[in-house]
Amino acid sequence: MNNHTTSSPSGRTKGSALDLSLYYVLDLPASREPLYLAESAIEGGVTAIQLRGKRESAASLYQFAQQLQPLLQQKGVALIINDRLDVALAVGADGVHLGKDDLPLTEARRLAPSLHIGVSCYDDLQRAKDAVHGDADYIAFGAFYVSESKPEATPVSIDILPQAKALGCPIVAIGGITPEKSEPLWRAGVDGVAVISAIQNAEAPDAAARSFRKVMQKARFS
Amino acid sequence: MNNHTTSSPSGRTKGSALDLSLYYVLDLPASREPLYLAESAIEGGVTAIQLRGKRESAASLYQFAQQLQPLLQQKGVALIINDRLDVALAVGADGVHLGKDDLPLTEARRLAPSLHIGVSCYDDLQRAKDAVHGDADYIAFGAFYVSESKPEATPVSIDILPQAKALGCPIVAIGGITPEKSEPLWRAGVDGVAVISAIQNAEAPDAAARSFRKVMQKARFS
Repeated sequence: MNNHTTSSPSGRTKGSALDLSLYYVLDLPASREPLYLAESAIEGGVTAIQLRGKRESAASLYQFAQQLQPLLQQKGVALIINDRLDVALAVGADGVHLGKDDLPLTEARRLAPSLHIGVSCYDDLQRAKDAVHGDADYIAFGAFYVSESKPEATPVSIDILPQAKALGCPIVAIGGITPEKSEPLWRAGVDGVAVISAIQNAEAPDAAARSFRKVMQKARFS
Repeated sequence: MNNHTTSSPSGRTKGSALDLSLYYVLDLPASREPLYLAESAIEGGVTAIQLRGKRESAASLYQFAQQLQPLLQQKGVALIINDRLDVALAVGADGVHLGKDDLPLTEARRLAPSLHIGVSCYDDLQRAKDAVHGDADYIAFGAFYVSESKPEATPVSIDILPQAKALGCPIVAIGGITPEKSEPLWRAGVDGVAVISAIQNAEAPDAAARSFRKVMQKARFS
């Protein structure tokens, strides 16, 4: 994947890609000041931030994303909004992330031809094929590990990744990933790891992000 | 206000107006089948339906709105989506309704120049002036009565209506309105009454809607 260096909103051109290699999902409400979490995560080297807040109002997501944008643009970090396509368009985010409870990809793509769209595929290869066919920019799989945010979910087998990889679309793994647990995911060919708890609940989010980067650099470039 | 007779999505042209005179706010989740509620309300003569579900997923709102659309278009009843501009655009609704926790009007108008946009102004004339300045298609005031959905709110004085009327934008009253209580609102010059409980919780929603129509016809045209 190319590095994300443009600061222009909605700057997707066919074939371009965001750098989602270390993708921090900032989940609101958080137990600490969200701007601090974002700043610390960026300081530690995350390449993209997803803003997620299923119970947050559109006004609150919009206001926080607006605060966040200058910081992200300055650092070349991508901003993805979870679920709310309208908020993503309003703040000029780079992308929107859609799960199964969100708008269908076909509608989102029709409404926002130039936005990067990511799709949660869980453990479902057919869903992934449909997403790629529907012009998704990346597909997300997981959880491969029991995660703090969804402790009840059955982990997905890492064996899905080679098949997912064959679809020719960037792959992000999500769910319960720690620096140690990210290593086999990199070996299996993911383009990025998405992280909530291991950054958000770390004593020092920047240090946590740095640990992820170290594992990534060792696994990807050695 | 003109009758809403077009079935084309997003068919707003400057100066056109929807018929919001009897405006049913279908609030999800409902205690009865929502499609039944809509059908019965339409049978009783509502002119517009707002779909609202603060805790519903985008997928669920989208799917229900898609079920509802053919019925509404056949009857010439307007569809307004609460809060979710993205869902409104995806289903080709006539409009979106924005409260203080939703996207700012300026952003919504920029993203959706041809959508009707309504704005909740509560008891706030300055907010109403800003909304009219920001190209809102209607402004909503209330609650003028204690409502079942917001029992803790202090009722707004009906004296606000003549001043609101002077802003030259269609006015909708909302909150705790029954057929009897709608009469003074019509006398004070509202263009529409928005109703949740008195239709949604009525034994027969169609009969409730007919009662509202009778009062409206008597108050407006006598």
